[in-house]
Amino acid sequence: MQTIGVLGGMGPAATAHFMERLVVLCAAERDQDYPPTLAYSASQIPDRTTHLVDDGADPTHGLQAAARVLQAGGAGAIAIPCNTAHAYLKAIRTAVEVPVFDMIDLAAATIAASFPGATVGVLAATGTVRLGLYQSALQANGLAVEQPDEELQEHVMAAIREVKGGGSGRDRRLDHAIEILRSHGAEVLVLGCTELPLAVDPASTGIPVVDATDVLARACLEWAGGAVRP
Amino acid sequence: MQTIGVLGGMGPAATAHFMERLVVLCAAERDQDYPPTLAYSASQIPDRTTHLVDDGADPTHGLQAAARVLQAGGAGAIAIPCNTAHAYLKAIRTAVEVPVFDMIDLAAATIAASFPGATVGVLAATGTVRLGLYQSALQANGLAVEQPDEELQEHVMAAIREVKGGGSGRDRRLDHAIEILRSHGAEVLVLGCTELPLAVDPASTGIPVVDATDVLARACLEWAGGAVRP
Repeated sequence: MQTIGVLGGMGPAATAHFMERLVVLCAAERDQDYPPTLAYSASQIPDRTTHLVDDGADPTHGLQAAARVLQAGGAGAIAIPCNTAHAYLKAIRTAVEVPVFDMIDLAAATIAASFPGATVGVLAATGTVRLGLYQSALQANGLAVEQPDEELQEHVMAAIREVKGGGSGRDRRLDHAIEILRSHGAEVLVLGCTELPLAVDPASTGIPVVDATDVLARACLEWAGGAVRP
Repeated sequence: MQTIGVLGGMGPAATAHFMERLVVLCAAERDQDYPPTLAYSASQIPDRTTHLVDDGADPTHGLQAAARVLQAGGAGAIAIPCNTAHAYLKAIRTAVEVPVFDMIDLAAATIAASFPGATVGVLAATGTVRLGLYQSALQANGLAVEQPDEELQEHVMAAIREVKGGGSGRDRRLDHAIEILRSHGAEVLVLGCTELPLAVDPASTGIPVVDATDVLARACLEWAGGAVRP
C-alpha cells in the first residue's frame, strides 16, 4: 500500500476527525490492513479565511512547506482536509511532484453522481463561500447552488470557530441556516468545511448530506490500495 | 511552539484517538494555539505482541525508520502511542537525536503521585504483560501490581484486537476481567494499551482509571508549549 499524506492542522480538530474517518472507512482486521498515513497538523499556517476575506497573513508559503515535508517523508499523494485551503491548491501543487487531491472537485462529482441536476445547499467557511469554490465546482458538474446570505453565513462561521476552539459547534443558529437553505430549494447539503461534520448531525437536517471530509477519505483509501467500507 | 512527533499506526484507531486527545486536552481558541504535530501512522510495522510472544517478524527496524522520518520532518520530540512498542524504546532512542517519551514511566509516575502505594490493576496487551513493562515501572514507583491471569488476559487481548479491526471492543468478558482485578485488590486501573480507551468506559469500572494515552498527550502538550486543559 502507498502512504497517504495529510496536509492538516486547519484546524487540528478537523484533522484528527479526518484521521478517524480514514480508519473507520477502511475495511481492516489488523493494523497492517490500513494504509500508512503521514499527517502534518501544521497548525501555525496563517488562517485562510482571514487572508482571503480580511487581508491577513498569506498562508501560501506555509502550505507549500508543509506539502514538501510530507513528500520528503514518503507520502505518495497529499490530501488537504481543509476546504478553504483549496483556494491555494494550484500553489501547493507547484511545490511538490506527488499528486494533491482536490476535495472540492471530488465532492461536487460525488454529489452529481448521486443527485444529478440537484440544488445543493453549501455550508462552508466564509473564505470558501466568498471565493465561490463550491459554486464553481458544483455548477461545472451541472448542479444548482444555494448559499447562505451574509447574516446566516456569520452563523455558519461562528459554529466553525467554535469547533476550532474545542467546542461542539452545535447551535440553533446553524440549524436555522440549514432550514433557510432548504426553504430556498436545497435538495442536498454539502458539508464544505472540515469542521462541520463535528457540528452537524446528518440525521437532523431533513435532506441528504454529503460530507466532503468523507469523500476525501474514501478517495485516499482507494488510491492507497486500502479496502473501503461500503 | 515545538512540533510533536507521533510514531503511530499501532494501531491506526489508537493513533487517531491520540490525535483527538492532543486536540481535546489543549486549551485553544484558534488553530494557531495548538502545537504543530507530525504523525506517522506506520501501520506496516510488524505486530509487536506477535514478535514478543509468538516469535513473529521483528518490528525494530520499522520503528527506527519511522522515528527517523519524524525527526527529519521537524519533530522536536517523539511520542509513541503504543505501550507494547515501548519494549523497543531503547532501540528507537538510539535511532534519533530528539527525545522520545516513555509513556509507561510517565503513567506509573502519574499514578504514584495520585495514588501512592496503591495496588494497580493492569489492562494491557499480552506482549506488554509478558514483558512486565508496567510491572517494573509501577513497582519502581512504589506501587503494587495486579494482572489478569492467562484466561482473562486472552479476553483483554480479544477486545484490543476488536478495536484494531474497527469494532468497539466493548465486551462483557472485558468487564469481567476488570471485576476480577478489583476483587483481587486493585484500587486503580491503568489502561496500558492505547486501544483500550476506545473499549473501556471509565464510569463503569467502579475504581479510578488512569489512561496512559491521556498521560502521554498531556506530557506532549506541556513539552510543546501548548496550554493544557485541567
